[in-house]
Amino acid sequence: MVTHYSLQVGPFPRGFHLITHQVFKAVPSWPEEGMLQVFMQHTSAGLSINENADVTVRQDFELYFNRLAPENMEGLQHDTEGPDDMPAHIKSTLAGSSIQIPILKGQPALGTWQGIFLCEFRNHARKRDLIISILE
Amino acid sequence: MVTHYSLQVGPFPRGFHLITHQVFKAVPSWPEEGMLQVFMQHTSAGLSINENADVTVRQDFELYFNRLAPENMEGLQHDTEGPDDMPAHIKSTLAGSSIQIPILKGQPALGTWQGIFLCEFRNHARKRDLIISILE
Amino acid sequence: MVTHYSLQVGPFPRGFHLITHQVFKAVPSWPEEGMLQVFMQHTSAGLSINENADVTVRQDFELYFNRLAPENMEGLQHDTEGPDDMPAHIKSTLAGSSIQIPILKGQPALGTWQGIFLCEFRNHARKRDLIISILE
Repeated sequence: MVTHYSLQVGPFPRGFHLITHQVFKAVPSWPEEGMLQVFMQHTSAGLSINENADVTVRQDFELYFNRLAPENMEGLQHDTEGPDDMPAHIKSTLAGSSIQIPILKGQPALGTWQGIFLCEFRNHARKRDLIISILE
Repeated sequence: MVTHYSLQVGPFPRGFHLITHQVFKAVPSWPEEGMLQVFMQHTSAGLSINENADVTVRQDFELYFNRLAPENMEGLQHDTEGPDDMPAHIKSTLAGSSIQIPILKGQPALGTWQGIFLCEFRNHARKRDLIISILE
Repeated sequence: MVTHYSLQVGPFPRGFHLITHQVFKAVPSWPEEGMLQVFMQHTSAGLSINENADVTVRQDFELYFNRLAPENMEGLQHDTEGPDDMPAHIKSTLAGSSIQIPILKGQPALGTWQGIFLCEFRNHARKRDLIISILE
């Protein structure tokens, strides 16, 4: 059985943001054993699981991803929505558009230091639509 | 319940290709609520979800990935099948080998601008075998 | 139905390691049709599916990822656990924290050349906790 919940988050400033609590709060009850998936319905933001404690990790991610796919790269054509447009698409594919977490004994089994990142790659983003799915 | 469908696509030229319609056509009927997964059975091509409208996005992806993992990088050993061999493996891990899309109200819930990319990383690829799975 | 199995692997030296056999041995029986997921409960190691035959592929991956996210990058703040700390988090997001494999006719449907990589990004790692999930 698969049950879905819609969740709208943000708008967030460009950067990496912890949304673990917002995602977990959107699920009214957890099965004993199952699978949680979160899906991003946009192509200029991503989802990832990473370190949940130190804000410098998220700041370093933003610095690093901007170096990995900088604005105004020579040769890129797609800039309809500005210089952050195509880099945002690239970063979205590198980070990924969905995350999965097993549900054990009635709760999502994240490791101690794991949290869910919403990776906002646009300079002026609107709210982001997520679909949370519980498979059991 | 999990139901699988085999789908062979291509051969594609090296680059990023939209296969959304081919994937959706391979599914004879959709459950009301469920999950769609597409799995790539190869290690030199990838799958991703990204922008479905502007062909320059796919061209920019090809340009960018070639810069990110160029051919003939100093120090790489694995070139059994040519200079595009090891870069193809690297790109495949960066893009990913499967994608997931929630199924809501009887259809896959892609966002407005989302499509399924087959990322072909070899210069002279053969057909690619995909496994489409419907979880319900 | 979702069934989980815990698996502890390693400790591994920094690098890319094939764990296909360890993962498959941890599953006592396979459904006829289903889905296998492996989830990494850590933020400084990753999972990926890639080439299973030639050890130089795994060596090249280690070389490449070290170039992609080198230690001591200018501007990074998070080095609580040493210079390999933040690069390990970055690499973990680029590789991913889970993999999925369809189960067909009672066995995981990996392509001929596909294996499961545990990507160890720390210099001195401890054992790693994985959760294996079978969806059917």
